[in-house]
Amino acid sequence: MIITISREFGSGGRELGKRLADELGIPCYDEQVIEMLMKNSELDGDYGAASSAREMQIAYSMTIGRRFSIPFAVMDQSVALTLTQRRIIEDLAYKGSCVIVGRCADVILEKMHPFRIFVYADKASKMERTLKRQSEKEKLTAAQIQRKMKQIDKTRAKKHELLSDIPWGRKECYDLCVNTSGKEIKTLVPAVTAYVKSWFQK
Amino acid sequence: MIITISREFGSGGRELGKRLADELGIPCYDEQVIEMLMKNSELDGDYGAASSAREMQIAYSMTIGRRFSIPFAVMDQSVALTLTQRRIIEDLAYKGSCVIVGRCADVILEKMHPFRIFVYADKASKMERTLKRQSEKEKLTAAQIQRKMKQIDKTRAKKHELLSDIPWGRKECYDLCVNTSGKEIKTLVPAVTAYVKSWFQK
Repeated sequence: MIITISREFGSGGRELGKRLADELGIPCYDEQVIEMLMKNSELDGDYGAASSAREMQIAYSMTIGRRFSIPFAVMDQSVALTLTQRRIIEDLAYKGSCVIVGRCADVILEKMHPFRIFVYADKASKMERTLKRQSEKEKLTAAQIQRKMKQIDKTRAKKHELLSDIPWGRKECYDLCVNTSGKEIKTLVPAVTAYVKSWFQK
Repeated sequence: MIITISREFGSGGRELGKRLADELGIPCYDEQVIEMLMKNSELDGDYGAASSAREMQIAYSMTIGRRFSIPFAVMDQSVALTLTQRRIIEDLAYKGSCVIVGRCADVILEKMHPFRIFVYADKASKMERTLKRQSEKEKLTAAQIQRKMKQIDKTRAKKHELLSDIPWGRKECYDLCVNTSGKEIKTLVPAVTAYVKSWFQK
């Protein structure tokens, strides 16, 4: 039971992922976990070996072979990162049932047929949610949040573009798209959990 | 409990609607039912009175007031049709819980906060489903089906455009988008039913 969650910034996708994993009694790996694993792997050098010229070539055809419009410098860096990330995500998925939030896990794990969820919401709801969850240290204005929201989603879309022909956020990439506008995430969790359980039952 | 289903041609949305309604023990009104009611109402003249100039004006501002790019002849006809359809769909919804498939019920019933589902699938799945459900009388070739598919979805998109600013099929218009690619509809019904029940429980 592999579930991937992609989401717009501020839509509550990460919270939904964590709560869904709790309900299902399986681990949830979010971007922070994966980033930590990537940093560790750099230190250990266990995934680092991937950067050899030959492996880069393989990774290139594996991942972004279809995207000729990307400058080479960007491409090389992306390939190395992508390959490390791919291995970490595959390792996590092979360990057993889990929820993976972000990091293009939906595309990376394509062959394992994960259940792919996309979480989205209208601007007002995303703004409200982001304002609420701000820490004491980070007090951004509404305008600053708006910019951050746009920028982060743009980066997500670009990363997705390296791996897939279908643009990020297009419903065609996902098995279920969940609109969280005006909803508290915890009220949606039973519905999503029920859907996921039913999906994997047959 | 009002549930609206919009769908791409061949995605199995109508079947999903019927099966979902059965599971929930509520009626399902599809396009055939609504068309029949519209024809009856024309004969009875009970909704026909709507075509008076004054009512046309009201209907105009109610429905397509924002769309200035539409030629007047098309607009007048659309307004009359739209108003009759709107009244029939509102009447059905006021009667009690139901599933309504198609006919822009999601936009028409906006103020009643229906649960809005969009059903979609990849081309291959839609083609396969359409080929399977062809009657003996109507044996279309794959190319003919492809054309029909495109044309019907285009008409649906245009009708939707008369009522809403957000293009038809954009996930932002719906609470849940269900991908039926490679799935038999009946295997998806428990998942969707569970989601809907959970949604209306809180």
